[in-house]
Amino acid sequence: MDLHSLNTPALILDRSIVTRNTERMSKRMRAHGVALRPHLKTAKSARVAKLATAGHSGAITVSTLAEAAYFLDHGFDDITYAVGIVAGKLPQAAALIARGADLKILTDNVDTAKAIAASDHGIRFKVLIEVDCGDARTGLLADSPELIEIGRILNESEHAELLGVLTHGGHSYLADGVDGIKRTAKEERDAVLLAASRLREAGLPCPVVSAGSTPTAVHGESYEGITEMRPGVFVFFDLDQLARNACAREDLALSVLATVIGHNKHIGQIVIDAGALALSKDISANAHWPQVGYGSLCDAETMAPLEDLHVAKVSQEHGVIPVTDAAAYDRLPIGSKVRVLPNHACITAAGYSCYHVVEGTQIVDEWDRVNGW
Amino acid sequence: MDLHSLNTPALILDRSIVTRNTERMSKRMRAHGVALRPHLKTAKSARVAKLATAGHSGAITVSTLAEAAYFLDHGFDDITYAVGIVAGKLPQAAALIARGADLKILTDNVDTAKAIAASDHGIRFKVLIEVDCGDARTGLLADSPELIEIGRILNESEHAELLGVLTHGGHSYLADGVDGIKRTAKEERDAVLLAASRLREAGLPCPVVSAGSTPTAVHGESYEGITEMRPGVFVFFDLDQLARNACAREDLALSVLATVIGHNKHIGQIVIDAGALALSKDISANAHWPQVGYGSLCDAETMAPLEDLHVAKVSQEHGVIPVTDAAAYDRLPIGSKVRVLPNHACITAAGYSCYHVVEGTQIVDEWDRVNGW
Repeated sequence: MDLHSLNTPALILDRSIVTRNTERMSKRMRAHGVALRPHLKTAKSARVAKLATAGHSGAITVSTLAEAAYFLDHGFDDITYAVGIVAGKLPQAAALIARGADLKILTDNVDTAKAIAASDHGIRFKVLIEVDCGDARTGLLADSPELIEIGRILNESEHAELLGVLTHGGHSYLADGVDGIKRTAKEERDAVLLAASRLREAGLPCPVVSAGSTPTAVHGESYEGITEMRPGVFVFFDLDQLARNACAREDLALSVLATVIGHNKHIGQIVIDAGALALSKDISANAHWPQVGYGSLCDAETMAPLEDLHVAKVSQEHGVIPVTDAAAYDRLPIGSKVRVLPNHACITAAGYSCYHVVEGTQIVDEWDRVNGW
Repeated sequence: MDLHSLNTPALILDRSIVTRNTERMSKRMRAHGVALRPHLKTAKSARVAKLATAGHSGAITVSTLAEAAYFLDHGFDDITYAVGIVAGKLPQAAALIARGADLKILTDNVDTAKAIAASDHGIRFKVLIEVDCGDARTGLLADSPELIEIGRILNESEHAELLGVLTHGGHSYLADGVDGIKRTAKEERDAVLLAASRLREAGLPCPVVSAGSTPTAVHGESYEGITEMRPGVFVFFDLDQLARNACAREDLALSVLATVIGHNKHIGQIVIDAGALALSKDISANAHWPQVGYGSLCDAETMAPLEDLHVAKVSQEHGVIPVTDAAAYDRLPIGSKVRVLPNHACITAAGYSCYHVVEGTQIVDEWDRVNGW
């Protein structure tokens, strides 16, 4: 079946590219002697998870307990839920463990550690302590006294097993160029190794030293002491990763197929049927490339860039593309198809229930996704 | 069942408020003698559609053919698909009509009009011509020659029935205050009436003169000559509508229930489990109110505003709330719940498959939604 037969907007995944991206990361992590625990928050798809875990143990990372349940149903049982848990979610986590998940949970605070230690679900929760390596989102500083306090609370409880430490060098997304990413990767490693050594010096176990973001997994110079890396968006990449030198243009596996529905010549714009819901309102790549707007246009078949055509405005189901050269109207007649490269693959993909998987312009498969919570 | 028993993030809809909002709009349109054809792109829910159409004919507006199919399945057959159609979507539209939909489609260009006129699905498409009243998104100018050309193409075809004209005063979202909205409402009406009169003067039929946006439906001074209005977000309202004086704070029916998952005191922030997917990356209200970020925090039970607490940063599943007064940590301990008012109800709701419907803090129902295309 040909690409042109799809209803639009539709989410298109290039199988050759996602395969190459996952193989490259798998090899790189093996070469560094680090286990790969890919973050499936981007793909939310068992078929992509299979590619992303190939050559490794099958361990995965998720961002919601709904993802954990979905991947468990699809045969992935070694799962780290990498968003800090709270007491109210322990019953859900316990139910997954009872169903066979080897689930790891996360905390960065004494209150939740106490709740885990005091829990009574007939199981022992495997727990990682979250460390802030400079990302300034969640996690404790590696030198904070609470790190040891939480470690002790968990280690002394029969309802918890202290597994180690976890960090996310998410500030690599804001790093300036490859050198900036290398520096962030070092900060990520230094912080998580310091936290691990402090736990060990306090006589506490720390078998797992978990780190990762796509940029730091792509450009880090040393992972010594880190036991696993958790990159996510590397499976698809996107304009934001491209703008930050984490990939090359030919690594972009994900695009949105759209149809030209209007030539608004009195204003000088082409309108497509991909708007805020089909593309998302994420404009992260604009920090480096303001000219990409809500997404860059490509030829639907060849994926060649369409000059400077980009989605400059979105409403719910409309994407508006400014036209400076009237030749664009002839090139993109009403009813013609384009493909739009998204700023941020994770957020754009979340608007869809499936991927239309292509080789060239042929649709070769349809892969499902899990959304929601 | 109590609100606190829900897994978070969850989409909360206050039944009393949505009922009051829909009753008020229904009465207002009746008082003006205008038919109400609510735009269900916001709610995408048959239960909300039932409230929004009460006191009117049951006619609705949709933004996708997936919505059209869903509402048809739920007993709504008078449906206007208010996004410009293209030839490739005519088979889908024809299939809906064959299933019983009294579907109206839309175009603003000669190419599509010709494709409709030349179609052969054994049915006659009811078609509206889209007019640009200043919104500068889609539609022809009311005084453009193509308006008559398209009218003639459609009117002369046995496969089309020219129904009239349609416009959307979407630039009311950018209007400055109530006076600005009133001016936009006048522009909307003037443009669509001009287009209608031009069609009629050319001897073409124009029984339908369709207009509307929530702000122009709330503040317009005259709808004379307009046969139907199509507001959408009025069912829920949101921070963006509030910032633009289209509603009052007590009209905000939609919120996201979230749990406090972190106190990141070393940086001065509270972290909740509602991030970019739970809230969306829409920050439209920030044009007027930069202090609301990705959403304003309220007490989960009373909906009282929590001082100036707002979500300033989001990653996929994390929302970060800057804390300037340390009392916030005591007020919102780890594990406590908050409700977040979204910038733009239509976009935030699209991340969820259902509404948890509340009266006060009691969950009284669950209403489904249709997503995707």
